[in-house]
Amino acid sequence: MSINVTTEFLARDAVRAVRRGDLIIVVDALRCTSTIVTALANGAREVIPVKSLGKARKMRSENPDYLLAGERGGLKPSGFDLGNSPLEYTPERVSGKTIILTTTSGTKALENSKGAQRVFIGSFLNAGAVAREALSTALNDGRDICIVQSGTNGAFSLEDFICAGAIISNLTDADIKLSDAAQAAYLGFKSIEKNLCANIMKSEHSKRLIELGFVEDIKFSCQVNLFPIAPFYDGRAVIVRR
Amino acid sequence: MSINVTTEFLARDAVRAVRRGDLIIVVDALRCTSTIVTALANGAREVIPVKSLGKARKMRSENPDYLLAGERGGLKPSGFDLGNSPLEYTPERVSGKTIILTTTSGTKALENSKGAQRVFIGSFLNAGAVAREALSTALNDGRDICIVQSGTNGAFSLEDFICAGAIISNLTDADIKLSDAAQAAYLGFKSIEKNLCANIMKSEHSKRLIELGFVEDIKFSCQVNLFPIAPFYDGRAVIVRR
Repeated sequence: MSINVTTEFLARDAVRAVRRGDLIIVVDALRCTSTIVTALANGAREVIPVKSLGKARKMRSENPDYLLAGERGGLKPSGFDLGNSPLEYTPERVSGKTIILTTTSGTKALENSKGAQRVFIGSFLNAGAVAREALSTALNDGRDICIVQSGTNGAFSLEDFICAGAIISNLTDADIKLSDAAQAAYLGFKSIEKNLCANIMKSEHSKRLIELGFVEDIKFSCQVNLFPIAPFYDGRAVIVRR
Repeated sequence: MSINVTTEFLARDAVRAVRRGDLIIVVDALRCTSTIVTALANGAREVIPVKSLGKARKMRSENPDYLLAGERGGLKPSGFDLGNSPLEYTPERVSGKTIILTTTSGTKALENSKGAQRVFIGSFLNAGAVAREALSTALNDGRDICIVQSGTNGAFSLEDFICAGAIISNLTDADIKLSDAAQAAYLGFKSIEKNLCANIMKSEHSKRLIELGFVEDIKFSCQVNLFPIAPFYDGRAVIVRR
């Protein structure tokens, strides 16, 4: 059986993938999905994505043992336990914990993916694992695959495009048909695979993160296949099969 | 002075470039802009892009010496002198002639670009020349540059994305700031520059053209820098400075 693979460039276009009935992989490489993957790899019990600050704070007040995490404008909101830097999500901080996470683009892409039967969480950190798991699920369910790039502030972002290409480059051992957009992302990734981080640092969002002092987050997030996990979003929380 | 360079993925998004006041380069590599460039390089006096078949036929009936050209579904409409294959536009057929051209995506991108102060016509065939001319005009007028990809049937197309990258790779000798989308297109082009035609043939539109028997058009259109001309659209017709 042949599987069609495509990619959408913007969080808002997740709804198109839902309409087509695609299996979705959401990518927000800098930094939301890298943070989620790191948190779960380091033992967090679950990550609950929440759109608004208000809703996040309310959920926390009702569940004092949850960690409150996220960013606005790249920075940790006041009173939060954790920002949106994957480096903060050490085993010591997150093991066994439920984390409420509110970010700008990634949370929106997840929200817009509700309604898809399967929503996986992708990043450079778990490109191989999420590709393998998504492929076997798609083959099993007879579905096509769409990688939804979150983008930055509603616009196309280089890092999510290249990250989509990294995941696509791991969709092997099956009869795969790439759309033009998927082919483009694949070519983009292949062209800078050997010098990934230096090229990702040229993106507009990277430049802003560097100004804010988060250069180490970019370096960390550009590590391909650091974690062999494929977290998925069940409509309430992102979890990983243990 | 620094010039921002970006690219839009779809004909309809030309309006954004117009709103920003950008200098526009319209690309529809398979085959509209390749056809226009070839016609003008081979001595055509001007190419008048027209959206509808009806309007094209009316203009022809009022101007019996014009050539009527274009496609619907890739094929030459009945009663037309020329299709949308650049190979038909030989000096013998087009020299000195005014050509009425109606196509699906390219004509729409041109129409949506009306209102921009400058609209150039780009393709692989004239990537270097159009880049140089656009850059010197943009520097002169203090404008940014946007390459508008026509796409295919309202969707992203690989060939226009890669062609945008080919033009961007020729925007040199100036202080250029690439957007994330422009950077992605540039990387895509660089990754397949040495094997351009074989990769362009993987696009969805290429496959359809090959089915229709137009494989030679793809090969012809993938020749980089065959023609050193930079045609521009004055709102009525596409012409080239002689």
